[in-house]
Amino acid sequence: MAAFKNARVLITGGLGFIGSNLALRMVERGAKVTLIDAMIPSYGARTFNIAGIRDQVQVNFSDIREPYSVDYLVAEQDYIFCLAGQLSHIDSMRNPVNDLQINCLGHLNVLESCRKHNPKVKLVLTSTRQVYGKPQYLPVDENHPIEPVDINGIHKLAAEQYFQLYYKVYGIASTVLRLTNTYGPRMDLLSQDKGFAGIFLRRALLGEKIQLFDGGHQLRDFNAIEDVLDALELAALGDHAGRIFNLGHHQPHSLREFTEILARKLFFEIEDVVFPPERKAIDIGDYYGSYEHFHKATGWVPRTTLEKGLEATIAFYEEHLQEYLKGPRKDA
Amino acid sequence: MAAFKNARVLITGGLGFIGSNLALRMVERGAKVTLIDAMIPSYGARTFNIAGIRDQVQVNFSDIREPYSVDYLVAEQDYIFCLAGQLSHIDSMRNPVNDLQINCLGHLNVLESCRKHNPKVKLVLTSTRQVYGKPQYLPVDENHPIEPVDINGIHKLAAEQYFQLYYKVYGIASTVLRLTNTYGPRMDLLSQDKGFAGIFLRRALLGEKIQLFDGGHQLRDFNAIEDVLDALELAALGDHAGRIFNLGHHQPHSLREFTEILARKLFFEIEDVVFPPERKAIDIGDYYGSYEHFHKATGWVPRTTLEKGLEATIAFYEEHLQEYLKGPRKDA
Repeated sequence: MAAFKNARVLITGGLGFIGSNLALRMVERGAKVTLIDAMIPSYGARTFNIAGIRDQVQVNFSDIREPYSVDYLVAEQDYIFCLAGQLSHIDSMRNPVNDLQINCLGHLNVLESCRKHNPKVKLVLTSTRQVYGKPQYLPVDENHPIEPVDINGIHKLAAEQYFQLYYKVYGIASTVLRLTNTYGPRMDLLSQDKGFAGIFLRRALLGEKIQLFDGGHQLRDFNAIEDVLDALELAALGDHAGRIFNLGHHQPHSLREFTEILARKLFFEIEDVVFPPERKAIDIGDYYGSYEHFHKATGWVPRTTLEKGLEATIAFYEEHLQEYLKGPRKDA
Repeated sequence: MAAFKNARVLITGGLGFIGSNLALRMVERGAKVTLIDAMIPSYGARTFNIAGIRDQVQVNFSDIREPYSVDYLVAEQDYIFCLAGQLSHIDSMRNPVNDLQINCLGHLNVLESCRKHNPKVKLVLTSTRQVYGKPQYLPVDENHPIEPVDINGIHKLAAEQYFQLYYKVYGIASTVLRLTNTYGPRMDLLSQDKGFAGIFLRRALLGEKIQLFDGGHQLRDFNAIEDVLDALELAALGDHAGRIFNLGHHQPHSLREFTEILARKLFFEIEDVVFPPERKAIDIGDYYGSYEHFHKATGWVPRTTLEKGLEATIAFYEEHLQEYLKGPRKDA
């Protein structure tokens, strides 16, 4: 990916899980990297995530809901990775108005600034499989009907549509990736509601009991962070403006399998319980997606098995666990 | 519609075109009517619209973007008609952030207040055919793919999804109507960008030249306001919670036909011009919708031909034209 050498790269949500890993990758590529992060507690950003590259990147602590600073930040960038957002489905139901402002207003400000000050930039938005709702068939491809089952899904869909519209009307080039369960080093272990992977990983690392709902037979596809970084690079460099692609993995695993892989490396108890009704109400059943379109467009395939990916993740946290059990404000 | 006798009815956007006509209808039914309106200039609200019923309704001047007052307004209502909104497609592109707050935040506040303080209420949301984008087949039914072609369409779609979600998750009953071109007494004649019907009508009433783009052969379906009021009543009273219905008319007309009907009653010049490229970019071509699902659910059919509807509309404005050429602030 020599294309990123000396390229000016902006990452919103740059101190979060995916953002910080992408920052590391971009520094490795020789890019000139700027990170924006509002450091909202519980969203997963922490300065420790970029400890290794702190002097090689520009860090801009700010909130993209505030439009005027965004004008200055987007100008003269070659690539912008739009990763800032609120990921918690449960939080989005508890505080829908906050989710609206975080997940719609922020992206809209970035697009408006690009329209005014940098229409030649290339953008990548990370969206979510959650826009499909409960799958009507498997694997889910991009033609699957859209039916968000929570406020977060509604707003992620609106954000995707912003990016497509700004391409169609103004020619601002962007690609949207619908991520599935992403895991790896620097993922947030503290949140109770950003997907089960972080929760299970924390409990396993701490030797705490893990509960499986209804046997844990629900299938999911999992992408290791390294594979998602590959996808982000390919999305930015290719000629896919206006398109939306699924990521995914050809080998889905049940939550039970995920847990049992953890149990091969770590000591903890597994407990079977019935699905709590309030969780069941917003659960989507089995999900795994087809990444065939993205493969055809870019050659991308996920290279990492769940076993290998979790091994690397556990190794990272065995070294740094205490950092990731601190509140995000205490790590500065 | 004896069901509305003594019913408590709240109308957001109650001083606008459709809201004020609905207020008149509800007073006629013997309902206890409260109107909310933020009176935002250029959105079509004016006190003259409710001059005839000013003492028979509660008028609450406020903005539903402000959540705390909404809590008090929704409590104890039997029906809420959610008509408040920004309708201009062009304004939504000029100021997308404003469109977001008006068309998403406002409705979300109403739903949140209902969830907390009045979960038994029945809601009707007016949405727009604009969510379908450029038709892939005609007539467009509710299964047609969704592809908004402007910011307004994206936000109207998000609002529909809020209402459906609050029904599925919290059981708050609502029906969504996707309106097509609605016309009639009290429609805004001053806006340059709330659809061509108001613009053409004003020009015709003033004897000004009307331009038709590319011959004016684009087809549209038109609903007279009386027919839309019937639909709003049926949507509120029936058992359709969680459903989305098109309105429409079985007899589409071209813009040229619309103009020629006006020309039978009023004196003005028709000029043929080429489609300006910036308008063509967001035009959707021919559109007419199928209202078959709503007909099957409620028996609704539009009773008014375009000829009869425009006749009544022209008669209204021949009496009140000067009021509707004043800025909305001057009419109080």
